Amino acid sequence: MRYEESVCEGRNPVLEAFRSGKTVDRLFILDGCHDGPIQTILREAKKKNTLINYVKKERLDQLSETGKHQGVIAYLAAYEYAEVSDILKAAENKGESPFIIILDGIEDPHNLGAIIRTANLAGAHGIIIPKHGACGLTATVAKASAGAINYTPVAKVTNINRTIDELKKDGMWFVCATADGDSMYNLNLTGSIGLVIGNEGKGVSRLVREACDMTASIPMNGNIDSLNASVATGVLAYEIVRQRINAGK
Amino acid sequence: MRYEESVCEGRNPVLEAFRSGKTVDRLFILDGCHDGPIQTILREAKKKNTLINYVKKERLDQLSETGKHQGVIAYLAAYEYAEVSDILKAAENKGESPFIIILDGIEDPHNLGAIIRTANLAGAHGIIIPKHGACGLTATVAKASAGAINYTPVAKVTNINRTIDELKKDGMWFVCATADGDSMYNLNLTGSIGLVIGNEGKGVSRLVREACDMTASIPMNGNIDSLNASVATGVLAYEIVRQRINAGK
Repeated sequence: MRYEESVCEGRNPVLEAFRSGKTVDRLFILDGCHDGPIQTILREAKKKNTLINYVKKERLDQLSETGKHQGVIAYLAAYEYAEVSDILKAAENKGESPFIIILDGIEDPHNLGAIIRTANLAGAHGIIIPKHGACGLTATVAKASAGAINYTPVAKVTNINRTIDELKKDGMWFVCATADGDSMYNLNLTGSIGLVIGNEGKGVSRLVREACDMTASIPMNGNIDSLNASVATGVLAYEIVRQRINAGK
Repeated sequence: MRYEESVCEGRNPVLEAFRSGKTVDRLFILDGCHDGPIQTILREAKKKNTLINYVKKERLDQLSETGKHQGVIAYLAAYEYAEVSDILKAAENKGESPFIIILDGIEDPHNLGAIIRTANLAGAHGIIIPKHGACGLTATVAKASAGAINYTPVAKVTNINRTIDELKKDGMWFVCATADGDSMYNLNLTGSIGLVIGNEGKGVSRLVREACDMTASIPMNGNIDSLNASVATGVLAYEIVRQRINAGK
């Protein structure tokens, strides 16, 4: 199921990567380049719903490791992504209510790795990340996950909001981490739950926040603004674990 | 109170750093070098209880940024260390029972920074780290602490065990994080408490563990061994926060 992260340069190699079913995390195309082979790559990319970046020649030259990019460079995922349905299936197979961690734009690979590690040990059934503007499953993430990436499925979706809406129809509740939310100790976090964590700097985006059923805050007794994103995820995930253990008693 | 991290090379600059009261984190001396100026530096280093590393010329040349080390290179702390008594004083000033986080050999600067951040927000009064074999207060730590390093005192001690023994005489209790400890939810973690966290790979050393009154584990429902050290610290610190809030009710 896993394969090595790699940069893929040149028309044939990139097309081959798409056709062999590899997951392209990011695709860089020379701006203004519209010839046949590039059109074929773009068609494959659209089929797979891949994020396409049109860039200037200078940027491509800078990204290129071989110096022979032929107007196209693709970054392949180090690990394969799961589908949201795989995550729900994992919960079902264990006979548990789904517990999913949704990351609304985590950018730091060490944070993402640490969160996958936390998700695995807290018994979350999977993680959902957005396709745009977030860190994907790179080799650094895999390393920081201490192996958890091999066990805990990570799904990548185009629109976090839409995914939340769909999961709500399945009876899931969503709690969003915000500094001005209700104290996590006063919320009922048992049952089918999605824990939504925002970007390191900007927090959870407004629309995603509005899509959630509850807001949860971690009590803060200090002088600074916020915990590290992976630490905050750990603290909130384990409040869910604690409430689940208590509910099971 | 803060000053920039820096590397200090050459006999006069290093001696000057000691005499001006700066904190030298690590001192590298050319092995076999015993002349007058080096002896003077060694005397200052011993007065301040600085960790001294005797190294070969090749190593010094490699460490040197100026190429003019004259047989001595000193790494100055980015931030000043506090004393353990400053931490107790901070608790007293707030009229609270001391809550101290003791790190038995955290090596990663991002983890140390994230832990200082957590300590600040969880209302811990300070952090204690060992002089040997651990990450000190570098510029990377300061950055990862998101400013918390300016508020939360960090003390550096020669012997963690001896410090624990002394703090026990002041009525503190120590709880050590270990995978095979009692579930943290079943322990009484209120009152004057020291939370002991081990090294990223090796965990808490045997002697330090034996010096503690309790062992605490975080419930693990996954496939891998352990949480990231800064996440584990966050989860345990917030279990202490939760119990303190409940006890205050």
